[in-house]
Amino acid sequence: MSKSFIDNACTTIFFVLLVQFAFVDSKVLLKEKLPCKTFTLYLHDTLFNVTNAANATSSAVTNATGISNFQFGTLIVFDDPLTLDQHILSSPVARAQGFFFYDMKTRYNAWFAFSIVFNSSEHVGTLNLMGADLMNQKTRDISVVGGTGDFFMTRGIATLRTDAVQGLYFRLKMDIKLYECYY
Amino acid sequence: MSKSFIDNACTTIFFVLLVQFAFVDSKVLLKEKLPCKTFTLYLHDTLFNVTNAANATSSAVTNATGISNFQFGTLIVFDDPLTLDQHILSSPVARAQGFFFYDMKTRYNAWFAFSIVFNSSEHVGTLNLMGADLMNQKTRDISVVGGTGDFFMTRGIATLRTDAVQGLYFRLKMDIKLYECYY
Amino acid sequence: MSKSFIDNACTTIFFVLLVQFAFVDSKVLLKEKLPCKTFTLYLHDTLFNVTNAANATSSAVTNATGISNFQFGTLIVFDDPLTLDQHILSSPVARAQGFFFYDMKTRYNAWFAFSIVFNSSEHVGTLNLMGADLMNQKTRDISVVGGTGDFFMTRGIATLRTDAVQGLYFRLKMDIKLYECYY
Repeated sequence: MSKSFIDNACTTIFFVLLVQFAFVDSKVLLKEKLPCKTFTLYLHDTLFNVTNAANATSSAVTNATGISNFQFGTLIVFDDPLTLDQHILSSPVARAQGFFFYDMKTRYNAWFAFSIVFNSSEHVGTLNLMGADLMNQKTRDISVVGGTGDFFMTRGIATLRTDAVQGLYFRLKMDIKLYECYY
Repeated sequence: MSKSFIDNACTTIFFVLLVQFAFVDSKVLLKEKLPCKTFTLYLHDTLFNVTNAANATSSAVTNATGISNFQFGTLIVFDDPLTLDQHILSSPVARAQGFFFYDMKTRYNAWFAFSIVFNSSEHVGTLNLMGADLMNQKTRDISVVGGTGDFFMTRGIATLRTDAVQGLYFRLKMDIKLYECYY
Repeated sequence: MSKSFIDNACTTIFFVLLVQFAFVDSKVLLKEKLPCKTFTLYLHDTLFNVTNAANATSSAVTNATGISNFQFGTLIVFDDPLTLDQHILSSPVARAQGFFFYDMKTRYNAWFAFSIVFNSSEHVGTLNLMGADLMNQKTRDISVVGGTGDFFMTRGIATLRTDAVQGLYFRLKMDIKLYECYY
């Protein structure tokens, strides 16, 4: 074995180590800062008022209690279409299935738990979300705590923004950022 | 220091690196593909109908709303035995405690959140699960989002399959696959 | 390149590898055993009884079913203050917003899902929790399944202990231990 071979071998190892450290570093940064997948969905919710069963996508299943005037305790079950733009009549790319309830005495505030159910040529699978919908904040974050199918074992954050409110209808803009992806 | 020592040292380092890369690779594969723990449990649910309090393990706590004919909005609280085989009278190895509700206008569909509570000589601890029970699919996955005790900090997937339905009784087969284990 | 340089380079690489392995080991131990953040909070819950709307922080939204005498099926929505000590009148450092319900026929037992909402000079953000509150155990663990803001993407365990019960009031001691932190 010649000196120059040893020289080359050691240099190679040295660079391999450098590259390895660089990758380790970037992986950590990636984990901390950069989402592995992002997308935006619009949720359209139309509350059932006895006469609109054909169009309604959600329904209150408990009554507000006398503790306050802000619907404290009203629990709403929903199966809402999710679209890629703001239009309620756009073709849904997924559905949001779950519930929320109002939980504050002094103003409107809510708590959500639901699944985003994909079943299209684009994606098959679900994302599972839960968290406080702090309605007095312009944007509020809830947790993506798990996923299945194309979203197997994923975790992340969904940033909610009230995009429209009109009578029985509201629209939420959801910016979904996944920070742990298995695929 | 002789040339052959340097030669040996560099060769050793080279193999250490190779092995290290191999381990890193297998860890990634492991993380992505192979569960660290799997088991199958059968959930037995018997709905309360006013006269069967002795045998019932679940009870509806809200009424279906007029939005549809498929129990949309009915919320059921349960404390169901879990067994290792299909027989309801087998000795339970754990219990499933939580709730589900129906959430679709056009057919039966449900959403679940519950804990699997182990308290035996085999296991002590809990698994926490949530997700959409897409009843029109033969199997559907929900998320294991956390665990305690013997299942400290675990995550994974539970695959649900309706195994029997008879009057007020249904049985779910649950294949639980954990992909993140701390112990 | 002199022999001694090669010698030094290889020795350096060797120690770099050693140090690297040492770090990898300690990281794994850290992940498995030591929390990255811990704190204790006291939760104060005062149930609404129709006449105490001014002080109440929680309200039952469903009725117990006839399946048992232990409130099986009663679902309670709450917005409870969290303090650093046992005194209900201490300045709240956060709020717990969510719900619990009773789910056992033979004794009191509960299931919880809620967010801890921080909004102070100390912390801004939320923690999301769920799990079985096994009331017959002196301490019981539930899962911290996600977080936002200062608690971005965190996971961990909350150990609950009933610290006081008096009429409509109860106090929980919550020892929160986070084992996955991004910041």
